Parts: sequence; structure tokens; C-alpha cells
Amino acid sequence: MTAGALIGVGLGPGDPELVTVKAARLIGEARVVAYFAKQGRESHARRIAQAYFHSRCEEIRLAYPMTTERPFYKPEYAAALRAFYEESAERLARVLSQGRDVALLCEGDPMFYGSFMHIFERLKERFHVDVCAGISGMSGCFAAAQAPMTWGDDVLTVAPATLEEEALTQRLSGADAAVVMKLGGNFPKLRRVLVRLDMIERAIYVERGTMTGQKIMPFREKSDDVAPYFAMVLAPGRGRRP
Amino acid sequence: MTAGALIGVGLGPGDPELVTVKAARLIGEARVVAYFAKQGRESHARRIAQAYFHSRCEEIRLAYPMTTERPFYKPEYAAALRAFYEESAERLARVLSQGRDVALLCEGDPMFYGSFMHIFERLKERFHVDVCAGISGMSGCFAAAQAPMTWGDDVLTVAPATLEEEALTQRLSGADAAVVMKLGGNFPKLRRVLVRLDMIERAIYVERGTMTGQKIMPFREKSDDVAPYFAMVLAPGRGRRP
Repeated sequence: MTAGALIGVGLGPGDPELVTVKAARLIGEARVVAYFAKQGRESHARRIAQAYFHSRCEEIRLAYPMTTERPFYKPEYAAALRAFYEESAERLARVLSQGRDVALLCEGDPMFYGSFMHIFERLKERFHVDVCAGISGMSGCFAAAQAPMTWGDDVLTVAPATLEEEALTQRLSGADAAVVMKLGGNFPKLRRVLVRLDMIERAIYVERGTMTGQKIMPFREKSDDVAPYFAMVLAPGRGRRP
Repeated sequence: MTAGALIGVGLGPGDPELVTVKAARLIGEARVVAYFAKQGRESHARRIAQAYFHSRCEEIRLAYPMTTERPFYKPEYAAALRAFYEESAERLARVLSQGRDVALLCEGDPMFYGSFMHIFERLKERFHVDVCAGISGMSGCFAAAQAPMTWGDDVLTVAPATLEEEALTQRLSGADAAVVMKLGGNFPKLRRVLVRLDMIERAIYVERGTMTGQKIMPFREKSDDVAPYFAMVLAPGRGRRP
């Protein structure tokens, strides 16, 4: 019997209409659809893709053992995540070994800070894998904020706010254009870094970009330090433009 | 009479099936579709989107005065491009002023090194503008190359190979993950920079990612220095992974 194929399907930034024609087709053809979810919560990926599901598809829910907000550097967090990815990969491997394809849904771009990558690395040698690109969360935010990001020779730096303050400052220093992701509890630190680098005036805060409840504002107008983990800050480039 | 709206429609990296459901709808609804093209060539944007065109849409072809390969720093190139964008914006403004919407097609992500941005800046104060996100060329290449790009706290640097050698070296130095765009005649320079930074082993060369004629290979296996302008080099990150 031929083993099934693992198909990583990028869903884009959150608006179900920003799913690609190809992803919609792959999801509709899939008899087994797998997705990540937070413990006890509706899966965000499932919500984006649901309208494209085949009416009789089987669903595999992969529930994280904790929220994304726990500090990674704690060994028990890394160990729990490792066990979760191992177990998830084995769950999918059992289905693939039965000769059935599995569409694994991925928010945003599957190859850009994506949970899919952890499954991909564990199964790529054992099964055929296809990857369908999706719009990254940041590209969704560029459009939602109507912010032209990179001009001419601008260099773009994308940094996670999870970096320590000195490292984040150093990495963003001199950036032509910048995107800072993974805000959450890192927001006060990021504010200090942006002040220090004199980037406040051109920074834009984007929360729930392309989705219901979207909030976009100049960073200087953001008066509190509360931000979801998946909120972003954009600092558009100012390169040459004819 | 109410003026029409300018709708920037991101088309993604090249595969017509990687157009989003939303973009396909916007294109199908549009009675006026505009797109960029090189002199005397078929428009690449039109080719990606054509299957979604309304049967009776009016087309506006905006033909660049030259190829993208001419060095920007020459004043006559900048002047010619400026005149082209001015004239193109005015052509679209005339249609918008008649109360007709215009869908302006954009390869990749419209807000990421996109020609759309030059029209957007010229018309955004005069007309209502909507922007529909698209998959960036680089995200298309990540998936096509099956290259997980950013892990954990990895910082991504995106640099155009048009930068001078020292600047390119400095910008890529210490990058966790990197994408170098706009190769073309800059390829030999980029090769020297990658050697100097010891990035050759992990670099991947991608030409025509997601399209017919796609070529993907480890950079070290690329024996010639010939590359199209829109080819890319990816250097995946090696950050922590549970």
C-alpha cells in the first residue's frame, strides 16, 4: 500500500477570503483535515478554513499543552512542546501509513514561524510532503494598514519581540523597514526599544489584521501596554521612490 | 457623481492558483482592470490573473519605459520612471474621476517592493483606495523550496542584491535567516558576499518559484552566475526548535 501525503496548507492572515484558490481546493478535496488549537479553545485555523471543508471530512485536532505565552527558555516548556510535536507527528503518521492523505492547516505562511514546520521536520523523510504557500500574517497587516513597507533598496528586518531587550535593540537598530511580531507581554519592552531607536513616530500598531475586531493605529496613539501575542508593529521603510 | 475606488489586488508569487479567493472575486467583479507590463512583452500580472477576468472588462496596460535591470542610481532612469508613474497615475485618475472603479493588479504582495506603491502614494489622497493582500514572492519561494525559514527567536533579514557590496555584506552579516532579492546582474556580487559570510552551505537558489520552469537548487550547485532579476536566494534560519 502506498502511504498518504502530508499537505501543509497555508491559510493566510485570518480573513477566510484571503485563503488561496489552491488552498480552498486542497481543503475541499481532503478527507482528513488536521489543525492546531489552544487547550479548550476553538481552533483559529479551523475557523478560517471551515467554509472550505468537505462535508464528510475527518478532523484531527492537535491541542497545544499550553498557551504560546509561556517563556520558551524554561526547560519544562520546551520539553512539553517537544512531546506535543512528537505525539502530533505520530498521530498524523498513523493516518498517513494507512494510505490516506492529510491536509494540515497552517495559519499565515506555513514556513514562516509556523507550527507546521515542527511536524514537517519530523515527517519529511518518511512521507511525501507538499506545501501550499499562504499569505503571511505580516503581509496581511501591510495591506490592512495600507502601509507600503519597502522601497527601492530598503532592507526589511523581521524580529520577534521575545528577544531580550538589548538583542532586540541591536537587531532593530538602523533598520530601514521593520516588523516586530509576537508582542503579548513583550509590549512594554518593545515600547522602550522603539523610543530608544527613535522609531515611535513611524511605527504602526496592528491587532487582528484582516480579521473581525481589527485595530490599526499610529503607535504613538497606543496609550496602554496591552497587546495580544499575535499583534504586530510595522515600521515602514523610507527608501528612494521615483 | 461619486468617484471610483482604486483597488490594489495582490496576485501572489506567480501560480494563478495562488491567487486568493478575494482577489479572484475582485478581479471578476472589475469592469476596468489595469496592470503593469514590460515594453513589448506580455504582462506577467495579466497572465496570472487572466482566468479570473470578467468577459467584458476593459484593460489598461501600463508599460514601463525600460526594463527593471537598468541601474536606478542613474538620474535619467529615475526621471523616466518618475514620469511613467506620474502618467500612469493620471491615466487611472481619469477613469476613477468618471466614477468607475479600477482593479490594479500587483504581482506578489502589493505593499512589499511593489510598483503599486508608487501609484498608491500618488492617488491615496484623491480617491478611495482598497488593498487586497497577496502572497509575497518570497513566501511562494519558501513553500516551493520546502524551506522552513524562521524558528523561535530567529530574525529575518530581507535585502535587495542591488545594494553595494559592502552594504550588502554588512546587512547580511549575522543574519539568522535571510532572503536576497533582485538578483539579475547582481549575482556575482552576491556570490562573493555569501562566500565572505560563510552562508553558501545553507543558501538555496530559487528561480521562477511556484511557476512553470521553476528551478530550485542548493546555492553551492549553481555553477553559473546567470539569474533573472526576480530570482531569489534563501538562507533558512537555524533557531531553537523543540
